[in-house]
Amino acid sequence: MSRHEINHVLITPVAFTDPPLLNAVGVHEPLALRAIVEVHTVSGLTGLGETYGDAGHLELLKKAAEAVRGASPFDVGRLWSVISGAIGGASRGSQSGLTGLATSGKTIGSVVAPFDSAFYDLQGQILGEPVWSVLGGKHRDRVDFSAYLFYKWATHPGGDEDRWGQALDPDGIVRQAQKMLREYGFKSLKLKGGVFAPDEEAEAIEALRAAFPSLPLRVDPNGAWSVETSVRVGKRLGQTLEYYEDPTMGIKGMSEVARRTGIPMATNMCVVETGHIPEAIRLKAVQVILIDQHYWGGFLPSLNLAALCKTFGIGVSMHSNSHLGISLAGMVHLGAATENLTYALDTHWPWKDESEDVVSTADLQFIEGAIRVPDKPGLGLELDRDALGRLHDKYLASNIRTRNDTGYMKSIEPEYEYVAPRW
Amino acid sequence: MSRHEINHVLITPVAFTDPPLLNAVGVHEPLALRAIVEVHTVSGLTGLGETYGDAGHLELLKKAAEAVRGASPFDVGRLWSVISGAIGGASRGSQSGLTGLATSGKTIGSVVAPFDSAFYDLQGQILGEPVWSVLGGKHRDRVDFSAYLFYKWATHPGGDEDRWGQALDPDGIVRQAQKMLREYGFKSLKLKGGVFAPDEEAEAIEALRAAFPSLPLRVDPNGAWSVETSVRVGKRLGQTLEYYEDPTMGIKGMSEVARRTGIPMATNMCVVETGHIPEAIRLKAVQVILIDQHYWGGFLPSLNLAALCKTFGIGVSMHSNSHLGISLAGMVHLGAATENLTYALDTHWPWKDESEDVVSTADLQFIEGAIRVPDKPGLGLELDRDALGRLHDKYLASNIRTRNDTGYMKSIEPEYEYVAPRW
Ligand SMILES: [Mg+2]
Ligand SMILES: [Mg+2]
Repeated sequence: MSRHEINHVLITPVAFTDPPLLNAVGVHEPLALRAIVEVHTVSGLTGLGETYGDAGHLELLKKAAEAVRGASPFDVGRLWSVISGAIGGASRGSQSGLTGLATSGKTIGSVVAPFDSAFYDLQGQILGEPVWSVLGGKHRDRVDFSAYLFYKWATHPGGDEDRWGQALDPDGIVRQAQKMLREYGFKSLKLKGGVFAPDEEAEAIEALRAAFPSLPLRVDPNGAWSVETSVRVGKRLGQTLEYYEDPTMGIKGMSEVARRTGIPMATNMCVVETGHIPEAIRLKAVQVILIDQHYWGGFLPSLNLAALCKTFGIGVSMHSNSHLGISLAGMVHLGAATENLTYALDTHWPWKDESEDVVSTADLQFIEGAIRVPDKPGLGLELDRDALGRLHDKYLASNIRTRNDTGYMKSIEPEYEYVAPRW
Repeated sequence: MSRHEINHVLITPVAFTDPPLLNAVGVHEPLALRAIVEVHTVSGLTGLGETYGDAGHLELLKKAAEAVRGASPFDVGRLWSVISGAIGGASRGSQSGLTGLATSGKTIGSVVAPFDSAFYDLQGQILGEPVWSVLGGKHRDRVDFSAYLFYKWATHPGGDEDRWGQALDPDGIVRQAQKMLREYGFKSLKLKGGVFAPDEEAEAIEALRAAFPSLPLRVDPNGAWSVETSVRVGKRLGQTLEYYEDPTMGIKGMSEVARRTGIPMATNMCVVETGHIPEAIRLKAVQVILIDQHYWGGFLPSLNLAALCKTFGIGVSMHSNSHLGISLAGMVHLGAATENLTYALDTHWPWKDESEDVVSTADLQFIEGAIRVPDKPGLGLELDRDALGRLHDKYLASNIRTRNDTGYMKSIEPEYEYVAPRW
């Protein structure tokens, strides 16, 4: 064991270009933040994790890094208790309003996650087995993703138009979907809602249905709607939706919408830690849970969650934030190892500039909307230190330290206010 | 991966001496049956599992052995689907009446389990890590067990008296407990009930309380009591019991006893597969689940179950049948890797003749009622082929092919009938 003892952890915040994607709390800033976590062993191996890059989160990561020194990469099951002890009852430094409650469990899970990722990456390297194999084997050879459509401006203020152009109405969304399907081959569609009046967004869903009659459709207003609005729009779209993701905030509201519409309700907002599960099940509030290694505490807790979902007949999908290649690889390995992954996964990948990453993602190409499950040991990645340096310099050169979609929106449209529910 | 491909599985039924332990369905026969599962790889490694030895179960094990040929020892997560496919919808060949419903899920789990054990044993050997490490690390250095007290005859008919002697009343049970605590150092006590009238057994519990004022006490009548009897005895013993294990059959009955007595209810009978969990939670029927690698499908499903228990605030203990050293090692590794193992584990170990086993258990000694978590790779065991041959010969020389406590009791006391609930 001591041969692979962890002797050093490096945490590097990075920034990468992000288009002006609109959501229920504002608009994506010109740069998205992430932190790259390298876990080094005395034997000379490096395990990788990718996580949020907000300033408050970085502080907690540093405390966790101290706490895991001397551990074995096989000690994943104890990461939660070790790290929660090290960071105390701290709450995460920032909260975007898109990701549900900032509970203590979610905060701990978010700090544990990149270490869990790096530990499994190390285990795989030590074994000569891919991470999915260390997690118990793969249940599929390809992992399906969904097109993640956003209302968006053509440009950031003062910036150049990106390759996606403007999408502010049903026609724009359909054009965006056509381009994304042409380029990536996705076989299901998700619209990020909560931006325009609910009936305008329902029109966009209906326009997508008309344009792509056979593809599953999802809408995710990020809790921007009241229960009454959610029920009304749900009844309008009921036959059209694969699932109805967080139209309204909270387990009680979701439960009422489920009961009154009969549509499968999905969430990454009202169930974000194990403490939320008993009430959600008791109230039949959610029929699909979007797992996410990045805040559930990594691969192992995500697999435990998926097993629980199977026991209770709850479907499993996967949540995404703006991310780089280490997260993408993790999503593919976890997706392969999750038996009951019943839906195509979310990913922000198409919104990222292809030239910006910290690893080569040549093995992670989208073909017909899916990524082939890789066979290399560990996560199968090699850190590109030059690229890491460039994205770290970009972070240093920017003044963004905490994601703030609302503040950025207010800087452009001063009358903007975040209210929930808005409709 | 192919270097460690599984190329051969050997299943050896064995029999070992068992004392005349009384229970709700009859009495233990002079020999207990187990099957030893050896999983061999092309690289020359051997992984070990131990399971039930009943004839019907052996047939299913053989089908499973065919199905896992060519697999990788890392493919534990797919064992369930591979093996359930191979054995079809078969039900387990025998059912003792002590272990709850013979559901399809439990049957599959029982067949999967020894392969899961052997696969993890192999993973550990390949890695040079103990099984608890492969399972995510240890949460304790010693695993505590409970003294498992039985009413018993002094001898099998026509046999010699064993070292434990007779225990048919409160005094006999207290003497048995004193001897077992002296020899093994256990720090908690469990009485197997369902044998004599409930008030006689309550007297035995009260005698144990008087003799051992500070030790936790459990009673397990194996569902021999009606709800009304369970409530009445529960009210008598409520302040005395650590938990109340399966006084009555079924989730609904257990739920009613829980509600009317307020005692924590434990089970290895009404929740024996994931399909039982939603109703048990909905009806608040159980506050402690006894996990058991041998029918939940091995280490991985047991850890998933423990994680679910944590989420729902349900305590975790561990169930035991008459077993040999491979099972004991598995219980210790699983016990070490289970974060929320909230109670001392059951074991039939003291009832076994020390001279009979198929592995050396020198590393698995009871000190102060606990076993030190071993550090050798895998399960840390080496199969003793001579000893295996001796216990296999014992199996061949006997005419027992399926456990039948009731039939054996009827052969001695012809008027005996199994009825449930008896009181
Ligand atoms: Mg969402
Ligand atoms: Mg029991």
